[in-house]
Amino acid sequence: MEITSINQEKTQSNFLKTMFENLKVKFKDTKKIGEDDPRRILHSIKVGFALTLVSLFYYFRPLYDGFGQAGMWAILTVVVVFEFSVGGTISKSLNRGGATLLAGALGVGAEYLANLCGERGEPIVLGIFVFILAAVSTYTRFIPKVKRRYDYGVLIFILTFSLVAVSGARISEIMELAHQRLSTILIGGATCVLVSLCIYPVWAGLDLHDLIASNILQLSASLQGKYMDKPYLQIHKSVLNSKATEESLANFAWWEPSHGRFKLNHPWKLYLNVGGIVRQCACHIEILSGCITNSKIQVVSEFEQKIQPSCVKMSMECGKALKEVSTAMKNMSIPSSSVALHLINSKAAADELKNIMEKFSSSPNEADLQQIMPTLVVASILIDIIEFVEKIVVSVNELAEKAGFKQTQLLHRGIVKPVNNDDDDQLVIEIVEMKKPIGVRT
Amino acid sequence: MEITSINQEKTQSNFLKTMFENLKVKFKDTKKIGEDDPRRILHSIKVGFALTLVSLFYYFRPLYDGFGQAGMWAILTVVVVFEFSVGGTISKSLNRGGATLLAGALGVGAEYLANLCGERGEPIVLGIFVFILAAVSTYTRFIPKVKRRYDYGVLIFILTFSLVAVSGARISEIMELAHQRLSTILIGGATCVLVSLCIYPVWAGLDLHDLIASNILQLSASLQGKYMDKPYLQIHKSVLNSKATEESLANFAWWEPSHGRFKLNHPWKLYLNVGGIVRQCACHIEILSGCITNSKIQVVSEFEQKIQPSCVKMSMECGKALKEVSTAMKNMSIPSSSVALHLINSKAAADELKNIMEKFSSSPNEADLQQIMPTLVVASILIDIIEFVEKIVVSVNELAEKAGFKQTQLLHRGIVKPVNNDDDDQLVIEIVEMKKPIGVRT
Repeated sequence: MEITSINQEKTQSNFLKTMFENLKVKFKDTKKIGEDDPRRILHSIKVGFALTLVSLFYYFRPLYDGFGQAGMWAILTVVVVFEFSVGGTISKSLNRGGATLLAGALGVGAEYLANLCGERGEPIVLGIFVFILAAVSTYTRFIPKVKRRYDYGVLIFILTFSLVAVSGARISEIMELAHQRLSTILIGGATCVLVSLCIYPVWAGLDLHDLIASNILQLSASLQGKYMDKPYLQIHKSVLNSKATEESLANFAWWEPSHGRFKLNHPWKLYLNVGGIVRQCACHIEILSGCITNSKIQVVSEFEQKIQPSCVKMSMECGKALKEVSTAMKNMSIPSSSVALHLINSKAAADELKNIMEKFSSSPNEADLQQIMPTLVVASILIDIIEFVEKIVVSVNELAEKAGFKQTQLLHRGIVKPVNNDDDDQLVIEIVEMKKPIGVRT
Repeated sequence: MEITSINQEKTQSNFLKTMFENLKVKFKDTKKIGEDDPRRILHSIKVGFALTLVSLFYYFRPLYDGFGQAGMWAILTVVVVFEFSVGGTISKSLNRGGATLLAGALGVGAEYLANLCGERGEPIVLGIFVFILAAVSTYTRFIPKVKRRYDYGVLIFILTFSLVAVSGARISEIMELAHQRLSTILIGGATCVLVSLCIYPVWAGLDLHDLIASNILQLSASLQGKYMDKPYLQIHKSVLNSKATEESLANFAWWEPSHGRFKLNHPWKLYLNVGGIVRQCACHIEILSGCITNSKIQVVSEFEQKIQPSCVKMSMECGKALKEVSTAMKNMSIPSSSVALHLINSKAAADELKNIMEKFSSSPNEADLQQIMPTLVVASILIDIIEFVEKIVVSVNELAEKAGFKQTQLLHRGIVKPVNNDDDDQLVIEIVEMKKPIGVRT
């Protein structure tokens, strides 16, 4: 008996222990979410603050007497409208306000028409109106442009129209109701927008800008120096999956007022352009990382020894170019002309590689194609990557031009040395004379 | 004067013409959305129907007297809860119901506690409660699992708690209000679920199943036969961007009851697994298509002529294997063993390729590395693709086993011939004897 009870106690304490451990892990995970992005904690506090403000507003008698039951629409608005970014909050507030106004007016019209049809006809006419409006509006939600910008507005439109059309038949003071509801929605929406704007605002536009810059930096880290280092080549995986995030940020950014160095008509669409090319480049790096991980041949062939320096050079220079582009973007400046220099260097390395291959082909040798194939594939993909890096540079330059990024001084003059030592001076002069960054069409 | 008025008329008619043309194009685009997926039109009609039903419910006096103002919550529930798929509708309905119940109870508790603090303390205590609950709940929305399954529930939780806590102080008949609101939400939610379930239901699970199968088919089309045909190689682009869709469908599918041959505990997560590998394979095909589009060398070298049949064979056999897998998946059956045959054939072609390369290397030749590089890269990527196709087969087999797909008869026995003609019989016998599809661990 004693043994059983001891065992029972043991099981119990074990159970408690595992539960405690589980809770600890969960708590740690939850804490990490806030540590990863402290703006999340701030956002939660902001929502709590806005809601408390509006709730107390509703709670105190004078306002309550003024707005009646409608006061709860202010609370509803805050809960539903407050988004993480300023753009999201503004988008939802404007959608809600506009849709309520429009649907309210239409609802009153429908009410009026239905009234003309007599007591028997009224519910039938109202039913038909509600059906047609709900069906047509729901269908418009499938149109990509509507879905992107006005999805929430259409929802509120259907809701308000139905409520006004149906409830109007009862309450008769429909105009006053509309007035009450609009004012309370205005109070709720304005509270959200003000809190979101004034207390540590989170700009979707800035987030998009930083996301693209950091994605470019991740490609750079994968290419630069880490050419042979496996763990680093995994970084870019998140880049491959950032499309949905980029698109939603661009949508929200469209609604944001001028902030910092982002003007009202900032070319947000071009960021999606850059993002697309960055993702294509990431796809190539993914294959490259697969090639390098797969090649298990330990014996380095003569051919591999010969071309490896060029491959490393190509990868490094592409990485450097991307790093400069990313840094320039982060600082909202036009990429300096040293980017062009890195590109020229990487292309020179590619040419060198081709020369080596030519020499290798013409000299009598016993090239084992199977053995040199992985090396050749790596070289070929690296040559493709140069092309994509150039495309990224062109698209970022286009963005920089359209967005009015500022010009930078040529800081790196003389520091970065081109590969071809023979025509060193000539190349540097060429670069220094280049006023516009490459890729900008004049 | 006359000329001016004629000009004006001309401009006016031109303006009307362009406007009319524009409208026509927009109308066509909008019509196409419905033609692409007629379920969208049906969905719109279903929403209109459900909303009209609930509105009339609310409109008629007997029910109106019973529920009072709360009747509008039924309308609100229908508008917000009705989603395209059954899973989405059920998820939102259950979230809404559960959250309202929980938050209502907590709200009453908070009300009671605040009441104890006297008339002065009450608003302060209530304010603190609302603030803490809103902030903590908003924070939990950042936890991935909560975001995936209960995001809408948390929103309704905050909303209901605030409304009950604040309004309760006024109306005093809080229990009756709660009862009213719950019944109306139940009416709204039940209407949505019933309409969504009974009238041409759209199952998120079935959509996910079909999406993965069609993505595999698209890869197959890219590889099979279309190896040299440029436009076809573009098909798989949509595959690369389907991650977000797959994830949201899997989330909704989790909520769906047993339907057709999908049971309640269908392994939806495994679909995401397959989808991930399919996307990696699509990435390789993307590079392959780039290589083929880029190679502008018109002169076909001796080497290329020699290895091209093997390359075409690899690509074709991989494509055939994927097509079989896709068809089997579509029919919810375990991929037949002819998939294994196609894989063996493609591997045989890869071996053949290696043989040719070996022979080519040892024979005295003037291999121009630069000229043969693109061909080598294509060959190498095709060899990689075989590996991914095998991974897809393994993951689909795992899915088929866990999901209880049915076994198929060996329909293709004797029709598909392996590449190596020398050991033809031996191979076929091997396949016929294989009871389990390859890749299934026993």
